[in-house]
Amino acid sequence: MEIVGTQFIDGKRIGKSATTFYSYDARNDESLPYQFHQATGAEISAAAAAAAVACPVYRATGLEERARFLEAIAIEIDALDDTFINVVMLETGLPEQRIRGERLRTSSQLRLFAAVVRRGDFLGIRIDTALPERQPLPRPDIRQYRIALGPVTVFGAGNFPLAFSVAGGDTASALAAGCPVVVKAHSGHPVTSELVAQAVVRAVELCGMPAGVFGMLFGDSVGAELICCPEIKAVAFTGSLQGGRALAEIVARRPEPIPVFAEMSSINPVFMFPGAIQERGADIASGLAASVTLGAGQFCTNPGLVIGCAGEDFDRFSQYLATEMACKPPAVMLNRAVLNNYRNGIKTLSGISGVEILAGAATDENSAFACLFKASSELLKVPSRPLEKEVFGPVTMLVAVQGLQELLEIIPDLSGHLTASIFAADSDLPNCKPVVTALECRVGRVILNAFPTGVEVCEAMVHGGPFPATSDSRCTSVGTLAIDRFLRPVCYQGYLDSLLPEPLQNDNPLRLRRFVNGEWSEV
Amino acid sequence: MEIVGTQFIDGKRIGKSATTFYSYDARNDESLPYQFHQATGAEISAAAAAAAVACPVYRATGLEERARFLEAIAIEIDALDDTFINVVMLETGLPEQRIRGERLRTSSQLRLFAAVVRRGDFLGIRIDTALPERQPLPRPDIRQYRIALGPVTVFGAGNFPLAFSVAGGDTASALAAGCPVVVKAHSGHPVTSELVAQAVVRAVELCGMPAGVFGMLFGDSVGAELICCPEIKAVAFTGSLQGGRALAEIVARRPEPIPVFAEMSSINPVFMFPGAIQERGADIASGLAASVTLGAGQFCTNPGLVIGCAGEDFDRFSQYLATEMACKPPAVMLNRAVLNNYRNGIKTLSGISGVEILAGAATDENSAFACLFKASSELLKVPSRPLEKEVFGPVTMLVAVQGLQELLEIIPDLSGHLTASIFAADSDLPNCKPVVTALECRVGRVILNAFPTGVEVCEAMVHGGPFPATSDSRCTSVGTLAIDRFLRPVCYQGYLDSLLPEPLQNDNPLRLRRFVNGEWSEV
Repeated sequence: MEIVGTQFIDGKRIGKSATTFYSYDARNDESLPYQFHQATGAEISAAAAAAAVACPVYRATGLEERARFLEAIAIEIDALDDTFINVVMLETGLPEQRIRGERLRTSSQLRLFAAVVRRGDFLGIRIDTALPERQPLPRPDIRQYRIALGPVTVFGAGNFPLAFSVAGGDTASALAAGCPVVVKAHSGHPVTSELVAQAVVRAVELCGMPAGVFGMLFGDSVGAELICCPEIKAVAFTGSLQGGRALAEIVARRPEPIPVFAEMSSINPVFMFPGAIQERGADIASGLAASVTLGAGQFCTNPGLVIGCAGEDFDRFSQYLATEMACKPPAVMLNRAVLNNYRNGIKTLSGISGVEILAGAATDENSAFACLFKASSELLKVPSRPLEKEVFGPVTMLVAVQGLQELLEIIPDLSGHLTASIFAADSDLPNCKPVVTALECRVGRVILNAFPTGVEVCEAMVHGGPFPATSDSRCTSVGTLAIDRFLRPVCYQGYLDSLLPEPLQNDNPLRLRRFVNGEWSEV
Repeated sequence: MEIVGTQFIDGKRIGKSATTFYSYDARNDESLPYQFHQATGAEISAAAAAAAVACPVYRATGLEERARFLEAIAIEIDALDDTFINVVMLETGLPEQRIRGERLRTSSQLRLFAAVVRRGDFLGIRIDTALPERQPLPRPDIRQYRIALGPVTVFGAGNFPLAFSVAGGDTASALAAGCPVVVKAHSGHPVTSELVAQAVVRAVELCGMPAGVFGMLFGDSVGAELICCPEIKAVAFTGSLQGGRALAEIVARRPEPIPVFAEMSSINPVFMFPGAIQERGADIASGLAASVTLGAGQFCTNPGLVIGCAGEDFDRFSQYLATEMACKPPAVMLNRAVLNNYRNGIKTLSGISGVEILAGAATDENSAFACLFKASSELLKVPSRPLEKEVFGPVTMLVAVQGLQELLEIIPDLSGHLTASIFAADSDLPNCKPVVTALECRVGRVILNAFPTGVEVCEAMVHGGPFPATSDSRCTSVGTLAIDRFLRPVCYQGYLDSLLPEPLQNDNPLRLRRFVNGEWSEV
């Protein structure tokens, strides 16, 4: 394992800056023996410029060639060995099994996008052939497909050092779309980032891709400068609401505005129907406590708000949950900043009038204790939405409403979230439909009888939702639809076959499914 | 014909404001006998609120019901009689044939979206069924479709009083998506707007749709206030760069940002290959002059920049074009503001060092004369892009480059445009491919041997392109893909069939094409 600590620019390693920073041990905040150079302005520009140079070459790669490149990255990621696993554990405090799982998730994600590329339907081909005899005017031949937006800046996420970082879902979907990627490495796991970037670069070289197709920069402040480079044509971000909004504002001031997809803030409300907690309240409480504390609660899909109907069953359920939460061992968080934010968040929640603590609160210096709060349902109706501010960590909030009517009434006023879950028994089903229909408008994923943690990477997944869950509810950052963020349609009018891009040519040389004259065709 | 001159709010007509304005005769700027009340703040809020109330009802309409509603609007638009045609002519100065054509285009567009709704593929259904035996973890059942974003504000466009205004493409695509619409009527054609809105309201009533599904407000300053209403979830705009950017900035300051699609500024470069102008320069010049002056040049697809290779053939072509342009009669423009802007634009172009006038310049008080300019190719490389500032009206600019190499070199530095056209003879074809590939990156539509005016409404059309052509190159405002602007994906995890929306249910009751476990299925 060789850690160079400089930028990845156009296939070279460059780091001219004297400003450096270290990686830290998540368990005790002591610095690890790896030093990183913060990217200079010139290095940032060079990375963006290299991506722009690579763009015409990379976007012109054939589907099979591009798919193999994604698979080559997957192979390199799978080959990252135990030394790698160990250093990710050191940097993030995440347990070994989680990191092994995330490594597999990351390579599987790349392979899934390879399949998407081969399938070719992301090209969105539509062909309307000429109607020369049409009255009053003939119709010309018009053919549409989708092309890469251009170089994409991906911000590594702190809480998913592999699956949402250097070679995570944003990078995989951007590369699949034909976009070069310049990653802003997350400063919480620079060693992890460097090792994954080395893996990507090996794949770039093996596949003979243009060197600028992948770049990576270190340093906290480089992101803002990178997204102002005119060569950058889209931004993908996973992080805080504050961070996401700041990026959006910076982008809005560019001479040329560009799309930003920021996945930001969600407390993932869970709705407990009376029959469910009556039938299996203890089981649900146990599962909920596990979901809230999984990975020290450091998931964007962490269930941070639990709403049920006031009564004996809900009281009993609350007690079960309090007992479960109180038994959870203290957990190491990703880094000191995350831990401090968690503590401050807990303090803020504790200080809200109408909020009481049911479990937790005690913390040692280096770890986070799980916390359970209870709040009055009136607080859900306060315009500043104090119960919907995300506190990142192992905490959740119980709220009892006065029956199903109030439960239904509060939904339209919820802010946007990534997910909402419903727990319902058979006896609850007749009451569920209006709740589901209302929730659909507030979230990207509606879940029945399961917890929101765990986001399947598949064709149908939506990891998105109305603001502030994301900056653009029309997109998802998990699942194959994520590729749509980085494509734009172009049409050709009146073209000769020889001048058309291959996917649009008459005899369909790539054998793609195409929408021709209003009907689907594979020939 | 009864013109009330008040707002359309929740099926009622309301106009409390003492602030009024008139419609004007485009030919002479004299006021017509129709007075309009500017919407008050309360009226703006009420229109947005009514749309929000209508939203859950409207988005729940069945596909057939919604398609019939769009067709009912089409029928009402087709039924607008000669009185209507005459008043549109008065207000806009556009000729009768154009308005009749635009009426047909508008109703056809609504019928095309009815077909899209019936087809149902805009729902983007993806189903991944459960894999309970999968290791290490089972996969839950996940089903995705797309739902309406919510109420949409549509800004009527001045240059298309029917096809891009009250019941134009933005409204048709938003209604097709299941979104209520609140139109900000263009103040250049308020009578036209009122009559079309009355037609829409008749369709709303005939079809028993919720009254708030369509609203319309009068007044120049109401747009900014309307898009700040929290109920509004998307904005569609066609107009100036200045106007579009202002809207985007207003929206960026909302507590909840929303998608804005603004189609703004394009000069639609035309590239003349040597063989084409040698073979048929006179024909091309004649066609180009007709395209530039069509509808007094008031098209967003007006060809405002013509680039060819310096030499005798291009000189001769330029002379043909100058002769053609000089013969064009003066034209009435949409209104006095448009005429004044045109004159100012011509003045600005004339004042650029390196630009000379070849035809035009003389104007009478009430109309616009066609103008032809010629500029040095060096001006294409000036960072402020003086030749790419849209001058809205019957004007174009000739630029001679030193051969095909320079022609190819300037393309990557062009700003974004809606279209680019290439004129090429058979002898030019070997040189065309790199030009086409480069142009694809700068525009939404690449045209061969035809002029950009005339935008076919079909499945494959892209009326979009990189900034400043639009604010989001991933979208189009013409063609059926326009519906995508107003939809967002939602997924259901682990649901019982009875709780799923119909399009996602197991037995596919709506018989839609669905993407199931990675394969297309119609069962």
